[in-house]
Amino acid sequence: MARTIYMRVAFDGTEFHGWQYQPGLRTVQDVLQEALRRVVRHPVDLVGSGRTDAGVHAAGHVSSFVTTCDLEPARLYRAVASRLSEDVAILELREVHGDFHATSAALAKLYRYRVYLGDTLAPHEGLHRYVFRCRYALDMERMQSAARHFEGEMDFTSMTPARTARETMVRRVFRCDIERVGEEIRIDVEGDGFLYRQVRTMVGTLLEVGRGHWEPDHVASVLACRDRTAAGPTALAHGLCLQWVRYPPELLIAPERSVVDDPEDDRP
Amino acid sequence: MARTIYMRVAFDGTEFHGWQYQPGLRTVQDVLQEALRRVVRHPVDLVGSGRTDAGVHAAGHVSSFVTTCDLEPARLYRAVASRLSEDVAILELREVHGDFHATSAALAKLYRYRVYLGDTLAPHEGLHRYVFRCRYALDMERMQSAARHFEGEMDFTSMTPARTARETMVRRVFRCDIERVGEEIRIDVEGDGFLYRQVRTMVGTLLEVGRGHWEPDHVASVLACRDRTAAGPTALAHGLCLQWVRYPPELLIAPERSVVDDPEDDRP
Repeated sequence: MARTIYMRVAFDGTEFHGWQYQPGLRTVQDVLQEALRRVVRHPVDLVGSGRTDAGVHAAGHVSSFVTTCDLEPARLYRAVASRLSEDVAILELREVHGDFHATSAALAKLYRYRVYLGDTLAPHEGLHRYVFRCRYALDMERMQSAARHFEGEMDFTSMTPARTARETMVRRVFRCDIERVGEEIRIDVEGDGFLYRQVRTMVGTLLEVGRGHWEPDHVASVLACRDRTAAGPTALAHGLCLQWVRYPPELLIAPERSVVDDPEDDRP
Repeated sequence: MARTIYMRVAFDGTEFHGWQYQPGLRTVQDVLQEALRRVVRHPVDLVGSGRTDAGVHAAGHVSSFVTTCDLEPARLYRAVASRLSEDVAILELREVHGDFHATSAALAKLYRYRVYLGDTLAPHEGLHRYVFRCRYALDMERMQSAARHFEGEMDFTSMTPARTARETMVRRVFRCDIERVGEEIRIDVEGDGFLYRQVRTMVGTLLEVGRGHWEPDHVASVLACRDRTAAGPTALAHGLCLQWVRYPPELLIAPERSVVDDPEDDRP
């Protein structure tokens, strides 16, 4: 019988050409599908919570698939996990409601962008792969003030290079918080969904404000003109990490199986 | 006038073929020499505190060179640092005593080997590049007991594949400490110098004891037989990091320059 499986993974995006399958390139989707196929013994069509660009990392990317394999989730987890390289790891694997779909059921996602401000970024513990090293001073208050303009439901055309005519460019950003932690500035963007390169363009725009090129309120007019060329440059991919994806709790519960040929079952 | 410069660097060994220059390969020595040569405008012969193998990291590797360039150390630092890729960083650059030599003057070095014991190694912050992920249980007390056999001055022939006939195989290990920090076991080995692959072979031997293949006291006989085949396997390179190198303080002080043609100078 077909079951729907929810899978939460973390990956280091450095050596992946992003999430989505591309022939001949190493992508997270392809690596996971290949490992799954060998275990469940049928081709797997993995549905992702979102595509991440080449170089972007994930602390909690979610994907789902349907399988006829009847291995218990714990055994399926171990079998698949043992077939993965060190730069991708399954954090959770479970059976969920048949209506679960990792793309369409997502309620919210949090992306974090890390900016490093220190003079020296000692590389022996790898931080240089996960933060953007900023070599100019940034004014946190100006950035926080600018970030307020990104919060709410609005047209984010200015924040994406995509030009797919019919698609709506309206997205809701629940919050855009900027905090300093040691030598690092963390920009957290939580929303119901994001356009192609939206978060990186938002970050690039905030950096222009932070370094003093633009006034914080200029962000309002950047958004209003619905023109990508009005925004700041796209921030480098390796500073970005998809932290988590949230779903309706009722879809994360596995269906109760009706017991076939149960003599105690006297329901009609 | 020729000056001797001391340079302390950190590097991520993942994409280097070790420290030492090898034609056609990316090594730390070559990358640093090339950056230095462009700044000081003469070829630089960089003397390293020690060679590290391909994949081994450093939090504080020391090297030295002699230059006729008269740039102030702070300016020399900035000029060289700006020419380096993100996986190598200069932490300190200063003029030192003319007798300083990064290899022969070293008094002590500390190497740290990191073993990760957790079930899942989330890769989005890169820990998988800097720890050896151990998939079997380890008994800390057995390992600590075995480590005592490595402390002191002794012949480490069993811990190195090198077979250079005349060289002495005697080294002094000041301490070999093993501690648990969260899901990680850290093996710290401090000594006056190390043979080729000595630390990794010591670690591989300690892991054999930790997993129960050997009794702790077996390490004494492994050392006594002076035969590499008696020891455990060489632990993987990426778990190892050179933490620091210590030198006599008097050599780390720049010479006072005699002032040429100083009318106040009435010394003979």
